Amino acid sequence: MDYQQFIQEQTSAIRQEVGGGLAINALSGGVDSSVVTVLAHRALGAQLKTIFVDNALMREGEPQRVVQAFASLGIPVELIDARRAFLDALKGLTDPEQKRQAITDTFYKEVLAGAVKRSGAKFLLHGTILTDIEETVAGIKRQHNILVQLGINTEEAYGYKVIEPLQTLRKDGVREVARCLGLPGLIVRRIPFPGPALAARVVGEVTEAKLATVRAATAIVEEELAGSGAFQYFAALLNDCATGIRDGKREFGQIIVVRCIDSADAREAAVRELPWETLHRLTRRLTTLPGVNRCLYDLTPKPPATVEYV
Amino acid sequence: MDYQQFIQEQTSAIRQEVGGGLAINALSGGVDSSVVTVLAHRALGAQLKTIFVDNALMREGEPQRVVQAFASLGIPVELIDARRAFLDALKGLTDPEQKRQAITDTFYKEVLAGAVKRSGAKFLLHGTILTDIEETVAGIKRQHNILVQLGINTEEAYGYKVIEPLQTLRKDGVREVARCLGLPGLIVRRIPFPGPALAARVVGEVTEAKLATVRAATAIVEEELAGSGAFQYFAALLNDCATGIRDGKREFGQIIVVRCIDSADAREAAVRELPWETLHRLTRRLTTLPGVNRCLYDLTPKPPATVEYV
Repeated sequence: MDYQQFIQEQTSAIRQEVGGGLAINALSGGVDSSVVTVLAHRALGAQLKTIFVDNALMREGEPQRVVQAFASLGIPVELIDARRAFLDALKGLTDPEQKRQAITDTFYKEVLAGAVKRSGAKFLLHGTILTDIEETVAGIKRQHNILVQLGINTEEAYGYKVIEPLQTLRKDGVREVARCLGLPGLIVRRIPFPGPALAARVVGEVTEAKLATVRAATAIVEEELAGSGAFQYFAALLNDCATGIRDGKREFGQIIVVRCIDSADAREAAVRELPWETLHRLTRRLTTLPGVNRCLYDLTPKPPATVEYV
Repeated sequence: MDYQQFIQEQTSAIRQEVGGGLAINALSGGVDSSVVTVLAHRALGAQLKTIFVDNALMREGEPQRVVQAFASLGIPVELIDARRAFLDALKGLTDPEQKRQAITDTFYKEVLAGAVKRSGAKFLLHGTILTDIEETVAGIKRQHNILVQLGINTEEAYGYKVIEPLQTLRKDGVREVARCLGLPGLIVRRIPFPGPALAARVVGEVTEAKLATVRAATAIVEEELAGSGAFQYFAALLNDCATGIRDGKREFGQIIVVRCIDSADAREAAVRELPWETLHRLTRRLTTLPGVNRCLYDLTPKPPATVEYV
């Protein structure tokens, strides 16, 4: 595929579609939404408004880091603090479908709808890729950003039209486009991070305390495995507890799962055979987190497991 | 330590304590209760009654296998089917302490008390070892077979006196005694199996369906790791579920944890660095069990984790 040509075609298409209007897009800091942001900024300049929604489910320091990275590319990003709205919506939910739905609804109906209304934009640019569409249509996973494919008319439901410039690409193609666009290596090589963010890695109810634990665990796993070259690596926090010993006394503690996979496009994934030294070091560090006394390594390829837990 | 001398001393002590009376012991098939059975049978002959309680928490074919193994040693063992009593007692319980307590109560107050009464025995021989006592006293784990150390007067509470001939030994010492007694290699080298049996490996409520799953998983893990030489290896079934893909469709499936440890005496344990080929084969086999779509490997030493999950 000629990615320069792809960029030119998509830039033109965006310009033609939006015309003299206003468009908006939500940047998550992932490679998909980052590429959409740069493509749309090239196409539309000041006609584009880019927002970053802090949904309380982000990694350590992520909102500030993303806004700063785009500022240095000359692209202004508005940071919207919607943490309370998401935490309230997730309260009491344990079913993965309901959790994903709550995040989708809060994002679209509450936060994004409000931002679109305030901005006056009639177009929403979205980083949907081919794998998202295939898996959603197949019923494997409800992606948070697939609406048209599910038969939802966004103009009627939310008052804007959705443009998805990456819907013919898989993850490897998106990375190529990112490189061609001159995006910083930090973004091009950023490991995939799911739409529901850390909520995809908290089994059971999502609470601020659990998010703090999985956020700290994620920082440790990302630090230890940054040099691994793996496709994706993360920590998940289970709802189950197991018995353990702390300071000579019995405790019923939390369980962190480390997952590290190799994959070309996230459709299939193989488990990375990490060095035991690394696994032991991860275990030592993760079991120092308050309340955590077990560390497990996920051995399951995709299929039969998905990459994420929720 | 001179184990032949230990055997002579304990055999005499048992004979002296029981005198012309009747003693009973419950055999689980583990090395501890097997050694007690042979020691007591040497000391008491026909004055000893040995029972095996099928508590519904045993491994595949275990009750029949154990009874048969002792029959071939000339030691008669009565098999008591108490499956319904244990399943009823465990119904609805999710707290590990409550689960262990329900098993203890059902075993002592219901099944063993009944068997003792029927037999007329005034002495109960028990395979308690030093590690059990230390951990129970320290509050790390409530073992099912520690009563005297917890201040429970069994003569008052249950109508019999407890004799614990192995209470000065750790697991390695018990194995030495087993060898000196000429117990079959199958029993001497049998990996440790906890008092609460498979209930120690079902996180959350223990149901017949979950027991069937963890029983099948245990058979697979034991078959694959029998040649590993590890101190202990088993499967645990979590209560949590995680997303997966089966036949192209999304499913919310069960999670099996594989644990394989090296240890001298179960007080401390290190995780066995199994070959990746073995881990992948275990994963392939375990994820073919109905409803199971994840396989995790436990990376946690003891401490901070215990060996078991409940």
